[in-house]
Parts: sequence; structure tokens; C-alpha cells
Amino acid sequence: MMEFSQHLCPKFERALEILGKRWTSMIVYQLLSGPYRFVNLEQSIPNLSGKVLSERLKELEAEGIIQRDVYPETPVRIEYKLTEKGRGLAPLFTEIAAWAEQWMEPPADLPES
Amino acid sequence: MMEFSQHLCPKFERALEILGKRWTSMIVYQLLSGPYRFVNLEQSIPNLSGKVLSERLKELEAEGIIQRDVYPETPVRIEYKLTEKGRGLAPLFTEIAAWAEQWMEPPADLPES
Repeated sequence: MMEFSQHLCPKFERALEILGKRWTSMIVYQLLSGPYRFVNLEQSIPNLSGKVLSERLKELEAEGIIQRDVYPETPVRIEYKLTEKGRGLAPLFTEIAAWAEQWMEPPADLPES
Repeated sequence: MMEFSQHLCPKFERALEILGKRWTSMIVYQLLSGPYRFVNLEQSIPNLSGKVLSERLKELEAEGIIQRDVYPETPVRIEYKLTEKGRGLAPLFTEIAAWAEQWMEPPADLPES
């Protein structure tokens, strides 16, 4: 298993910074299930505002983690989807799911699923 | 590999919420290398204010991810360290490091390490 040194390698620190931003991991996770249009992505994540979603999508696009596909239909259709780099994050969510399953209590208002 | 459904299991969503908070993953990562005193933890993470660090430590302690050890010395010594639940996050950072190594460019101002 990886040795964890106090020294943060720049690439790793940059990755933590990107992934550690509020909502980013939730957005990437949703896109792992396929392309989304803006309005559907916004609806799929409770409490996420359109403004913040728009910011995060721009950041993720600039990082090459997602791509924005424009379909010249009427009206124009725009979809967001993960790039290969973005799909490379899938194992991260597999680990989060395993950790959550082992350690997290179900929220008080919900029966054990 | 895990099938990614649009439906967010409550435990998983809760885990994403906790880990997705700004600075949380960076703080947990630092603690993977061992216990820290507040001031050293604050110094080890650039741009992180004492106020936010204090908030995150309280949240992480409430979630059972870290523990706060008080040593009755003079002056009193207080250390923060990961619990077993917290150490369970280590594979997550191994995945982030692997992803960063494969996909991230070194920041422009730094030579390839």
C-alpha cells in the first residue's frame, strides 16, 4: 500500500484541489452513469444551484475531465460527458462506495437500505 | 467494476458530502502520515486558515473519522489522528495518486518531479 509522506507531490495536490471542491465529486459521479444535459444534471443533485453547477462544469472542462458536446439540432442540444481522463476516476468512487458501505450509518430519517 | 447508477445510495451520498467538502480530503491525507498538532497541520496545508481547519476537525471528529487526544502535560498537548474509520480512507488516496500520476500535468511553474 502507498506510503503517505507529508510532502505533497504537485500533481497529487492539484488532483486533491480539483476533486476536493464542493460538488465536484458528486457531479463526476453522476456523469459516470452517462452523458447528461445541464437541466437533468442540476435536478439529479439536491441543493446544487445552477450557478455553481455551471462553474464546476467549466472547471472540469478546462481540466479535460469532461467534454461538452453541442448537437446542432433545433433547439440546440448540449450534453456533458466524461472524457477518458474523467472515466479514469471511476475506481475512486468504487473505493468511496466500499468505505461508505463499511463505515457510514444510514441517515437517521432513512431505513437501512 | 462497480455499476454506477444515477440513484445515490444515502450512505454513499453522505460520504461524498463529507469528503467533498473543501480541504477535508487534504486534511485526511496529511493525517495518514501520522498524528498532528493543530499548528503543524495548519502549516502543512498551504492557504488553509485556522478557522476552517478548526471547523473541519470538529466535523471529522463528529463523524468518527479522527480523534482528538489530550495529553495532560504542561502545557497541555493536543494531537489529532485518524481513527480506524479514517484510516479506512487510505485506498481512496492511493487511487487519487494513481489517477494524478497518469493524468495530471505538473503545475506550469514546477519542473517535472
